[in-house]
Amino acid sequence: MWDNPTWAPLVASLITIVLILVLAIVLRKVAHRVITRVVNRAATGGSITSRFRKNAVPDSIDALLHERRKQRAETMGSVLKHVASIVILGTAVLTVLDRLTIPIAPLLTSVGILGVAIGFGAQELVKDFIAGMFMLLEDQYGVGDVIDAGAAVGTVEAVTLRVTRLRDVDGRVWYVRNGTITRVGNESQGWSRAYMDVPVAYDADIVSVRVLLEHVAEEIWADGEFRETKIVEQPQVYGVEQMSDSSLVFRISAKTLPSAQAEVSRELRFRVKSALDSAGIPMVATA
Amino acid sequence: MWDNPTWAPLVASLITIVLILVLAIVLRKVAHRVITRVVNRAATGGSITSRFRKNAVPDSIDALLHERRKQRAETMGSVLKHVASIVILGTAVLTVLDRLTIPIAPLLTSVGILGVAIGFGAQELVKDFIAGMFMLLEDQYGVGDVIDAGAAVGTVEAVTLRVTRLRDVDGRVWYVRNGTITRVGNESQGWSRAYMDVPVAYDADIVSVRVLLEHVAEEIWADGEFRETKIVEQPQVYGVEQMSDSSLVFRISAKTLPSAQAEVSRELRFRVKSALDSAGIPMVATA
Amino acid sequence: MWDNPTWAPLVASLITIVLILVLAIVLRKVAHRVITRVVNRAATGGSITSRFRKNAVPDSIDALLHERRKQRAETMGSVLKHVASIVILGTAVLTVLDRLTIPIAPLLTSVGILGVAIGFGAQELVKDFIAGMFMLLEDQYGVGDVIDAGAAVGTVEAVTLRVTRLRDVDGRVWYVRNGTITRVGNESQGWSRAYMDVPVAYDADIVSVRVLLEHVAEEIWADGEFRETKIVEQPQVYGVEQMSDSSLVFRISAKTLPSAQAEVSRELRFRVKSALDSAGIPMVATA
Amino acid sequence: MWDNPTWAPLVASLITIVLILVLAIVLRKVAHRVITRVVNRAATGGSITSRFRKNAVPDSIDALLHERRKQRAETMGSVLKHVASIVILGTAVLTVLDRLTIPIAPLLTSVGILGVAIGFGAQELVKDFIAGMFMLLEDQYGVGDVIDAGAAVGTVEAVTLRVTRLRDVDGRVWYVRNGTITRVGNESQGWSRAYMDVPVAYDADIVSVRVLLEHVAEEIWADGEFRETKIVEQPQVYGVEQMSDSSLVFRISAKTLPSAQAEVSRELRFRVKSALDSAGIPMVATA
Amino acid sequence: MWDNPTWAPLVASLITIVLILVLAIVLRKVAHRVITRVVNRAATGGSITSRFRKNAVPDSIDALLHERRKQRAETMGSVLKHVASIVILGTAVLTVLDRLTIPIAPLLTSVGILGVAIGFGAQELVKDFIAGMFMLLEDQYGVGDVIDAGAAVGTVEAVTLRVTRLRDVDGRVWYVRNGTITRVGNESQGWSRAYMDVPVAYDADIVSVRVLLEHVAEEIWADGEFRETKIVEQPQVYGVEQMSDSSLVFRISAKTLPSAQAEVSRELRFRVKSALDSAGIPMVATA
Amino acid sequence: MWDNPTWAPLVASLITIVLILVLAIVLRKVAHRVITRVVNRAATGGSITSRFRKNAVPDSIDALLHERRKQRAETMGSVLKHVASIVILGTAVLTVLDRLTIPIAPLLTSVGILGVAIGFGAQELVKDFIAGMFMLLEDQYGVGDVIDAGAAVGTVEAVTLRVTRLRDVDGRVWYVRNGTITRVGNESQGWSRAYMDVPVAYDADIVSVRVLLEHVAEEIWADGEFRETKIVEQPQVYGVEQMSDSSLVFRISAKTLPSAQAEVSRELRFRVKSALDSAGIPMVATA
Amino acid sequence: MWDNPTWAPLVASLITIVLILVLAIVLRKVAHRVITRVVNRAATGGSITSRFRKNAVPDSIDALLHERRKQRAETMGSVLKHVASIVILGTAVLTVLDRLTIPIAPLLTSVGILGVAIGFGAQELVKDFIAGMFMLLEDQYGVGDVIDAGAAVGTVEAVTLRVTRLRDVDGRVWYVRNGTITRVGNESQGWSRAYMDVPVAYDADIVSVRVLLEHVAEEIWADGEFRETKIVEQPQVYGVEQMSDSSLVFRISAKTLPSAQAEVSRELRFRVKSALDSAGIPMVATA
Repeated sequence: MWDNPTWAPLVASLITIVLILVLAIVLRKVAHRVITRVVNRAATGGSITSRFRKNAVPDSIDALLHERRKQRAETMGSVLKHVASIVILGTAVLTVLDRLTIPIAPLLTSVGILGVAIGFGAQELVKDFIAGMFMLLEDQYGVGDVIDAGAAVGTVEAVTLRVTRLRDVDGRVWYVRNGTITRVGNESQGWSRAYMDVPVAYDADIVSVRVLLEHVAEEIWADGEFRETKIVEQPQVYGVEQMSDSSLVFRISAKTLPSAQAEVSRELRFRVKSALDSAGIPMVATA
Repeated sequence: MWDNPTWAPLVASLITIVLILVLAIVLRKVAHRVITRVVNRAATGGSITSRFRKNAVPDSIDALLHERRKQRAETMGSVLKHVASIVILGTAVLTVLDRLTIPIAPLLTSVGILGVAIGFGAQELVKDFIAGMFMLLEDQYGVGDVIDAGAAVGTVEAVTLRVTRLRDVDGRVWYVRNGTITRVGNESQGWSRAYMDVPVAYDADIVSVRVLLEHVAEEIWADGEFRETKIVEQPQVYGVEQMSDSSLVFRISAKTLPSAQAEVSRELRFRVKSALDSAGIPMVATA
Repeated sequence: MWDNPTWAPLVASLITIVLILVLAIVLRKVAHRVITRVVNRAATGGSITSRFRKNAVPDSIDALLHERRKQRAETMGSVLKHVASIVILGTAVLTVLDRLTIPIAPLLTSVGILGVAIGFGAQELVKDFIAGMFMLLEDQYGVGDVIDAGAAVGTVEAVTLRVTRLRDVDGRVWYVRNGTITRVGNESQGWSRAYMDVPVAYDADIVSVRVLLEHVAEEIWADGEFRETKIVEQPQVYGVEQMSDSSLVFRISAKTLPSAQAEVSRELRFRVKSALDSAGIPMVATA
Repeated sequence: MWDNPTWAPLVASLITIVLILVLAIVLRKVAHRVITRVVNRAATGGSITSRFRKNAVPDSIDALLHERRKQRAETMGSVLKHVASIVILGTAVLTVLDRLTIPIAPLLTSVGILGVAIGFGAQELVKDFIAGMFMLLEDQYGVGDVIDAGAAVGTVEAVTLRVTRLRDVDGRVWYVRNGTITRVGNESQGWSRAYMDVPVAYDADIVSVRVLLEHVAEEIWADGEFRETKIVEQPQVYGVEQMSDSSLVFRISAKTLPSAQAEVSRELRFRVKSALDSAGIPMVATA
Repeated sequence: MWDNPTWAPLVASLITIVLILVLAIVLRKVAHRVITRVVNRAATGGSITSRFRKNAVPDSIDALLHERRKQRAETMGSVLKHVASIVILGTAVLTVLDRLTIPIAPLLTSVGILGVAIGFGAQELVKDFIAGMFMLLEDQYGVGDVIDAGAAVGTVEAVTLRVTRLRDVDGRVWYVRNGTITRVGNESQGWSRAYMDVPVAYDADIVSVRVLLEHVAEEIWADGEFRETKIVEQPQVYGVEQMSDSSLVFRISAKTLPSAQAEVSRELRFRVKSALDSAGIPMVATA
Repeated sequence: MWDNPTWAPLVASLITIVLILVLAIVLRKVAHRVITRVVNRAATGGSITSRFRKNAVPDSIDALLHERRKQRAETMGSVLKHVASIVILGTAVLTVLDRLTIPIAPLLTSVGILGVAIGFGAQELVKDFIAGMFMLLEDQYGVGDVIDAGAAVGTVEAVTLRVTRLRDVDGRVWYVRNGTITRVGNESQGWSRAYMDVPVAYDADIVSVRVLLEHVAEEIWADGEFRETKIVEQPQVYGVEQMSDSSLVFRISAKTLPSAQAEVSRELRFRVKSALDSAGIPMVATA
Repeated sequence: MWDNPTWAPLVASLITIVLILVLAIVLRKVAHRVITRVVNRAATGGSITSRFRKNAVPDSIDALLHERRKQRAETMGSVLKHVASIVILGTAVLTVLDRLTIPIAPLLTSVGILGVAIGFGAQELVKDFIAGMFMLLEDQYGVGDVIDAGAAVGTVEAVTLRVTRLRDVDGRVWYVRNGTITRVGNESQGWSRAYMDVPVAYDADIVSVRVLLEHVAEEIWADGEFRETKIVEQPQVYGVEQMSDSSLVFRISAKTLPSAQAEVSRELRFRVKSALDSAGIPMVATA
């Protein structure tokens, strides 16, 4: 252009440039709208766990979940929109520079060398973001859930695309990078299970111990304070789980609401001890 | 084109463009149809485990497996179709841009730099998808199976291309990324085995203990409640499995239906204890 | 240029060069200003923990946090500004060399070969910087916090973009590279928890022990020296946490201010021992 | 072609295209035939273990091994043929497109970007296939062998190029990816070894115990039920393997047919106990 | 040039070449000077630990630290100067070759292939150098410090850019590659801590034991041989650190100068034992 | 060529092609011969262990080693020759295609994409081959040696470039990939060592026990059945290796021929027990 | 050239080729000489440990070290010379081919594809060589030293650029790849330390035990058989190293020549026992 100052191609170039910029702006708008729609649909309906959750929790929690879903959609959408904007506008700028016969190789070179150097180091970052994106999409856990993230176990306080913040039972706050979480155990979905193992002497009468424990199970199920508000199914007494020369181990197991298992276990221990005491059967040491 | 506004090549270019687009749409259709057919065949017949399963489970489960197979075909097909569409349409668009002498280098550059940066980070994601694809194809496990995925053991609640959702025995829900599962143990295929080890005193009579245990084995096999509905083969009594200065350890082993081993073990413990009691032989502590 | 010494293009080239340099300087200024603004906003308001901290700590600490935030903004901004300067000036220099028809391929080659060789080795460095950048951005911890960085546990003495310096309880100074910290546990946010497990004999009276312990809990909560200056909630007595043939284990748990849990635990031990002594109940060995 | 509609080069191009396609088809045929021949030779004769196996197993198993070899050849050949077809036909198509002056850069670009993205993630897959290929080629194990694959130990139920399916002794079915198996222990090749350690009191007479155990070894070797059908060599009595202040440990060791070691061990235990009983020598506790 | 032997461009080329070489030499000088200045500033003042050290150590050590700083500056500067020389002279040579129309592609090719092959393997080397560079820059440790480098614990004997040489307490000399040190614990910065745990019987009088131990703490602090030359703060007596059915554990803790903690601990043990003996309180076994 | 059907260049091209092919065949011959010579020299003389082995083993084994060396040379040579053939012929074919103006870009593209995809996955394979090549070259072990390969310990049955096949003491056959063996322990080179630890009571007379043990050492060295055929040096009695309040541990150590250590240990145990018995000194339990 | 058979450029080309070859040969000579000089200097003087060694070992060992240094220089030089020859001659050949207008792209392609495939797999090899090179350069250990290489501990028998061969105390020969050695502990540099822990009863008199042990320390230091030929400093008696309710543990520590610590420890045990016996103080069991 600098060597050949005739006007016709210049004007043609200008028109091209304007067209490119207009196209870029339109494309960006369209891309943002598409992202909003896709993300909304993904966040509200398509989640593999959303249907499951609806049934497992009371209706009153539904509003909360709805709110959570909306936030999720926004978090995911914002990143995708940034990426789309960068690609579209970057392309437009490069195209315009090219049209103006300004050499873009030097720019690409210096960005490229730096880009490769950083690219390798940024892998972890991208992994964290991708992992976070899918965690949100699949609704693996949300604020308030108690999760086992491998590195730490605790209550979720915040979920961002890069890290998950937990607070463990000792009050310690954990920041766990999403990309380092290969498996997550969520203790707040559906139900938990409370256990109690009852070792009695080897020469105890199996049948009578069993009857005694089944009685305890029925009682706690009949108790209005626990039935359905804490325990969701009648506790079961398993037969002899372990047997050695010194003890027979029975087990009582109860399905409880999420996070209620510690309390139910304590109650089971209390009631079983009372029942054993009144029946005069002591517990024995297991191997 | 902008520099040489004669009509002939323009028309030729337009015709080319239309041809390219038509070709792309036709190719996409063909590709989708091919994928549907291939995936259906893979999902219904070619699985290395499908024949095995058919024999091992009652006919009533056959319908269930058929349903599962259909879902699997759809899950796999949808991803492959997306990939095919992106490749074919992407190529068509680039070709058209090229034909219109619009420079595509800038676009490729900005997409490429971003692509490499993301590509490294997305490795894990692609691994998860490939692993999930093959898990489905090989029908390694399905919803309802009890599996050992290394990170967690439990009942499968959902299988997607990226993660497998399990619920363990304590009610905890586990999300395990498919790519991190290097080996899977499925406890719900064919049969399980129930064990019981019986340690008796070193000076016990080997032959009489053996007879006693074989009697227990025959009895449980004769019991209609267990035979074939829970136990699939007469339980076997192994000889002396371990021997020390204080004890001889015998073992009874029973092949059971999948997931029935816990119940059968409990019954074995109950019956062996009764038999030992009536014969006056106590169990002794093993080392 | 060397082959064709006519003046017109030379002058055009010179003008171009001046324009490029001016543009580069302007761009660098703009980039720096944008970085300053973005970083300031990120450091002061957008942090996912900043709001949380405000509520959890007394107002007097607010000034300290403000100072910390300013330092964070400067640390992060300085690196970003360096990167921006290098990219913009590097591009400008390359463009000028190109304009002067000085071949830049040899320069790019020798820099490139070295760059790739170093690039691979520098991954770790870049990872450390990116991790440090996000740690600052998310305000995961600051000077004075007690953190568990996996490799070492201690009080933070300095946070740079590459390493975090801790001093552990034995006076050892630890330098931990930020990129090797996959999860951080911060013990100085909000509250900690003090525990005491009290094992009593199996035949002890559950109810009376419980009453005794609850009395201790009330007393310590009533004590002005601890209430709210050290303990933030009335201590709770849990029921029977563990039960064996020889002992029943009760637990007292108290929420304390961060880092006060050791002192509160010692006080709890002292008071529980006194109470047990006066009630004549000895502690027993747990399994 | 579109710009220069003279006929001569068009015809020349057409001839070239036909030649290319014919060449491709011929090449593919040749490649397939070469693969079939190479794979057959590799599968039937060149295996490093095939000669070994022939000697170790009865002739009746020879037919089985022949069948296995044929299947192996087919499994390996099919993958290689697919790869050859894709390379040859892909090249032909690209060459034709090039001849027709249809630009192939856009196609290569979109395939390439996707290819790199997938390529990284597919590493594991390719590793699995290569590992599987060599496992088959070297005949490391086959259906029915008992192997230790690290992740799981059990009987091989199926070997594909990607995974090996085992069933362990508890009935659990394991899918182990071939690429994750860095070492394999095959328990079904040649022979196994049955052991029994016999600890006697420190003041026992070494010589007489040794004579007693050698007598047991001779007896079992003389027994028609075990000699050669289960035990392949006369059992050996080692001298004092371990010595402490309380015991001298002797060891009997017998080479058995593969998988017969458990049964032979049980028989050894039975016979040694009888011999010790009749000689009045009790076993003692080892440290 | 070989094809067109007219003199004018040859002379022009020669002038260019001379200019290039002169420029290269000037640039190298400038680069070296810049490196010297930057490295000096980094080594003497900007280190994050230098200010800290100044306060913690007596003034007499200041000269030593100054010497260390100078050596550090030289070590770091020499590598950077080599790198700068190689880049600048390499570029100059390539440019001259290019100017002489000698093809440099073959050279680049053979160097490049070798370079990539070596580059991957040399990653570790570059990592070691970068890690060493930053260790020096941040003054993490120096000759004479006692450090915990993970792989080995001991006194630093030499620090090079690639390895750190330690001598452990048994006289073993350890060479640890800098890149494998992800965290370093330096025991020679500021202070160390000496501990002593004193378990007494469960029924001992808490208050009197505490008074006795506090008396010991005061005595050792009053002792001129320890105060400030070895102990830097009055030792503290913590309350009951652990409590079981058999013992109460008290702890004395003293801040000491670096490396004096072993000697102080021995003195504490000696004095506490004397005090307990004279008070007639024996120590008891902790759990 | 297709566009310009004049004969002169065609003939020139044909001559070139013939020259290229002749050159390729000659080069391949030369390369093969060079490889044969280099590999032979490496296998027979240059091995770092060959000289060592010659001295350590009787002359009769020399023939065996010679045979092994020849096999090694063949194994290594065959792979190198294949690689050389592929490179030389591949280059020739590509050059010919290029000369014929047949475009080779499409071929390279399809081979390249596949090649990269496979290349990443094949890394492990190449590692195995390189490791195997060097193991053979350095003669680390051969068929019949007892080695510790980390993953498994046993007698080498076969060494190929990719895997090493071992048989362990239980008859299990192990296939270990050469690339996964980072260190190898060879128990069949030179000598082994047999140990026996003799714990006696704390109040035993050190000197007399030592004399007794030295007497045993002299006796076994004097015994023709062991001297030099099994033991290669007079056994040594070390002084008190360990000392506690209950025992003093003496140690006898004997250098034996490779693999004879188990037998020598048994003999040492037998003789030491006899000597202790006749001297009336019992062994005691070590801590 | 084939198309334009005029003589002038041909002659020019020939002259160029001859010049290139002559230049290559000269360059290679120069490179070799430079390498020899640099390596010699590095091996003889610049090593970070050479000065240290000189002082620590008697002068008679100096000749040995000189020999070792010369061998090291040769080992390192030979590899560098090979690399230099390959680069220089390879470049010359490619340049000549290019001058002759023979296309080198096909050659580069086939070498390149193979090179990348092998390059990834050869990383480990290059790592081993680089590690070996620096180990030699830094003189970390030599033949005859006792080292702890992580994978194995033993006496170095040979050091090559790729592997280090050790023989452990049981006579097992270990081949450890240099690249897998991240840290090396050399027990043969300067001195070792012999320890003995002496536990006495809790009520023993601290001062008298200490005097007794100091007497033993003085005696052994006075003994001509140990002083300076085995022990290099008077042994020290530390105060109470550990204290429990049952024992006080004293420690004697002696600096010895490398590898003499086992013998000195045995002597210490012997003398301490004698001294304790004559003083009537028994050792007690430590916790």
